[in-house]
Order: sequence, then structure tokens, then C-alpha cells
Amino acid sequence: MLLKNTLSHHVLFWLKNRGDLDLFIDGLHTLADIPSIRHYHVGKPAQTFDDVVDRTYDAGLLVLCDDVEALNAYHAHPIHDAFVEKYARPLVEKVVVHDAVNA
Amino acid sequence: MLLKNTLSHHVLFWLKNRGDLDLFIDGLHTLADIPSIRHYHVGKPAQTFDDVVDRTYDAGLLVLCDDVEALNAYHAHPIHDAFVEKYARPLVEKVVVHDAVNA
Repeated sequence: MLLKNTLSHHVLFWLKNRGDLDLFIDGLHTLADIPSIRHYHVGKPAQTFDDVVDRTYDAGLLVLCDDVEALNAYHAHPIHDAFVEKYARPLVEKVVVHDAVNA
Repeated sequence: MLLKNTLSHHVLFWLKNRGDLDLFIDGLHTLADIPSIRHYHVGKPAQTFDDVVDRTYDAGLLVLCDDVEALNAYHAHPIHDAFVEKYARPLVEKVVVHDAVNA
């Protein structure tokens, strides 16, 4: 089924210390209560090993929302600020984001 | 809402020639009929410009399915073979995939 009228916000995280992975995953799940999120997925690399598969990241977050406005509301929400302060800033080494709208 | 029991298959494509984008997007939509896909999104970079946002890719595909077995069935389906022959092989310069299971 096609996800219509959807912005896909896909975030890859590389941690400073992989020993913090469980704590960081808990942090990602705190984002779930932000109202502009329609669906979300908190992930770790699957057991797939094609040569085009990048498995170097530690955790991934997929957020599906309506549009750029909804994404901006998500980023501006106090729960997101708390996530950044408590989890992202202390634990994350590198972040890469891919935001996509329907094509 | 949390996407439970879900494998997220996220693919980024860089085309040899950006003039082929519309044709390639049509090709991505042909994959929709593969039965092991639960939800999918065909995308192009959104108008978001944070410094961690990568907007260098031309098209993105997000496939949500049950697990690695479902993903393997998707890749082995004749519709996927036809997509590779008709669209991916002639038009695509580079592919990067991130597959994630629930964490």
C-alpha cells in the first residue's frame, strides 16, 4: 500500500560508545509521544548483507508524518528538545538524515 | 504509532542522468505489486536543509515488510527482476541501502 501525502524522515545514528545502545534506543522511543508523528520505527541493522547495504550505523529512526510543517512541529516539540539534551548530545557521534516527500 | 514487527528497507538512488528521474520514479512504482510489501513510499528530497540532512540523492524508496524472509521474497520476485533490468541497471549510478529491524 502506497504511503500517500507522507514525509519520510529517516535518521541514522552512530554512537560514541556502542555500550550505550540500549539507553539510546530507550531515548528514541520517548519521541513516540510527539503528536505530529503518524508512524515511527526504531531500528538496528537487519541481518542483510548485500554489497550495497550499509550496516555501519548503530540505530535508526524512521518517522512518517504529513509534510514539512509537521516535521518542523516535531522538531520544535519539548519532547524532542529533551531527547536532544538527554540522549542525542551526550551519546551520538554522527547523524545523517534523509527527508523525502512523495514522488 | 509504532510500526511493530517491521523491517524497514530504505534505498537511496543516484541516477546517471537526472533527466531520467520521471522515468525512474515510474519504475519504482512498478514494485508496488510485489505481495510481500506491506507499505511503500517513493520519494524525492524534501525541502529541509538542516546541516545533517543529505539531499544529494535523486530518488528514495522505503519498503516496509514483515522480516528478512519477506524482504528476500521481495527481491526474488519477477517484478523486482524486471525493475532491475528495465530501470535500475540502465539508469542508476549508485545505490545505498539501510535495512532495519525493530529495536
